[in-house]
Amino acid sequence: MEKKSKYDVAVVGATGAVGRTMLSILEERKFPVGRLVPLASSRSTGTQVEFNGQKITVEELKADSFEGLDIALFSAGGSISREFGPIAAQAGCVVIDNSSAFRMEKDIPLVVPEINPHAIGDNPGIIANPNCSTIQMVVALKPIHDRYRIKRVVVSTYQSVSGTGQSAIEELRVQSSQVLDKQPAAKEVYPHQIAFNCLPHIDTFLDSGYTKEEMKMVNETRKILEDDSIQVSPTTVRVPVFYAHSEAVNVETEKAIDVEELKKILSSAPGVRLVDAPGKTEYPLATDAAGRDEVMVGRIRADLDNPRAVNLWVVADNLRKGAALNAIQIAEFLIRG
Amino acid sequence: MEKKSKYDVAVVGATGAVGRTMLSILEERKFPVGRLVPLASSRSTGTQVEFNGQKITVEELKADSFEGLDIALFSAGGSISREFGPIAAQAGCVVIDNSSAFRMEKDIPLVVPEINPHAIGDNPGIIANPNCSTIQMVVALKPIHDRYRIKRVVVSTYQSVSGTGQSAIEELRVQSSQVLDKQPAAKEVYPHQIAFNCLPHIDTFLDSGYTKEEMKMVNETRKILEDDSIQVSPTTVRVPVFYAHSEAVNVETEKAIDVEELKKILSSAPGVRLVDAPGKTEYPLATDAAGRDEVMVGRIRADLDNPRAVNLWVVADNLRKGAALNAIQIAEFLIRG
Repeated sequence: MEKKSKYDVAVVGATGAVGRTMLSILEERKFPVGRLVPLASSRSTGTQVEFNGQKITVEELKADSFEGLDIALFSAGGSISREFGPIAAQAGCVVIDNSSAFRMEKDIPLVVPEINPHAIGDNPGIIANPNCSTIQMVVALKPIHDRYRIKRVVVSTYQSVSGTGQSAIEELRVQSSQVLDKQPAAKEVYPHQIAFNCLPHIDTFLDSGYTKEEMKMVNETRKILEDDSIQVSPTTVRVPVFYAHSEAVNVETEKAIDVEELKKILSSAPGVRLVDAPGKTEYPLATDAAGRDEVMVGRIRADLDNPRAVNLWVVADNLRKGAALNAIQIAEFLIRG
Repeated sequence: MEKKSKYDVAVVGATGAVGRTMLSILEERKFPVGRLVPLASSRSTGTQVEFNGQKITVEELKADSFEGLDIALFSAGGSISREFGPIAAQAGCVVIDNSSAFRMEKDIPLVVPEINPHAIGDNPGIIANPNCSTIQMVVALKPIHDRYRIKRVVVSTYQSVSGTGQSAIEELRVQSSQVLDKQPAAKEVYPHQIAFNCLPHIDTFLDSGYTKEEMKMVNETRKILEDDSIQVSPTTVRVPVFYAHSEAVNVETEKAIDVEELKKILSSAPGVRLVDAPGKTEYPLATDAAGRDEVMVGRIRADLDNPRAVNLWVVADNLRKGAALNAIQIAEFLIRG
């Protein structure tokens, strides 16, 4: 990307949970933004967002919205990305897309900057941001793969409602009050009550019995780690948590694992924060991860039977590292050239 | 046990979450109770419990509490069981103990009536009731083991606060209100906020990095299924749910698994209710399992890479099948002779 002192940036889906987080992270990290253009569907047009102390009016997303801009951060769902992503790229923007629309397309890089920043250079105007549950897992897996070669991963997720969006955050809030007041829970976003419940259902079901969310964890992990031989057996579950996803991960490797060595490796791995002192009740927690940038890894322990396996507990803020932060880290690599 | 028309029954810990459930299940299932003796520590002495429409005053647990009684259902923690269990057995009671005190003792049967009722006959006056998270898992695993021989299980749990007791139910209620009101969460029972959070910590930590709860799932599974070769790799997690535990279970077997055959086997397995129509958003849920007797099994799907593995989602009421119901089912086998 051409070197400039400031870059004009569009945020598509600026009023959503991820879009709002993108705005605050651009601000926090002092990304060199020239003009900021918040875009959304006509429903949200006219509302205002704050950026660097200024109120900016949200504009309606249209085919000509991207003229003259440098970077477009998309987070408004797959169909918006499929329609407007190529238009933005055609207009000369580099698109960083948080939807699943382009992730598995062969020529489009799928990037976690701690892992495969080299893939960014090769982009055809669109770079895909991986799925939230995948990003935090691969940040923890990459150093393990480098040292011990991963063969198989069995993962169960504990995913917060903010991954679904603002309406789901509101639904958990309202339903929780209703249940505490012994009222029936009003269901709109999820097919079943999410308050005080666990739903083994994220995204839609495929004929195989797996959900699309589960298949994202399988396919995206292989693409990001650039190793199609890695087996992933996932169960993705929505839990009544507002922010941050947790994951229980069992990893089988080719080489035997020395747990103390692994802890050392993870303690200095990029993007990882080791939180592993169970005797002092210190382990990764969603409430601690919310609002933070690192992927927290803890409860690291040797498999009880298999010397080539280890268990981990991995927690990260799904709106930040799982979405907005990762996208902006990609943008930072882009402008570094 | 000697045949009688009625049996005099003590419930030790009668005011706790499991104790109360024991009383209501004895009633529901019309267990032939002659005299019911609710026992508790001096703290709860004098409070009243309801049984079959009568109010009965809770008595203080003492060494002579068991004279002349037939059955003693214990659910007041390990130290109470260790102190008073042998005394009750000595007095001629058969003790059915819900604590972990005796579960792994060689001569004491550890029983899930759907699986190993034959072990009941052999008791030295004490029969152990397994841990809640183990019971529901083995009810689902037993038919799989019989048909395909289980080699390895990777399990992640989503356990409700009622497993900790009444005080934890209250803590989740209070903290949830506090968080919804943007107040700090008051912590008493758990070391961290449980409302809108997931704690990868149940029972105490061992030097290995595993918790005692996790080791219960390993050791009790082997004892109940009578096969020490079964490998179990567990992560046990407390989630903000009031009633019923959920479990994501990956099972590796010796023989290849035909998923349609397995669904058929599970649909007629004792104690199992198959709930597996994801296209209609039907899968086991904690909110549906609460108050029910069966272990709900669903999301049954072939492992994506290993033809000798399958994923399941297993949900049951931890106070009922996970504790009180299982204990009373043992008592029913006992009096059947």
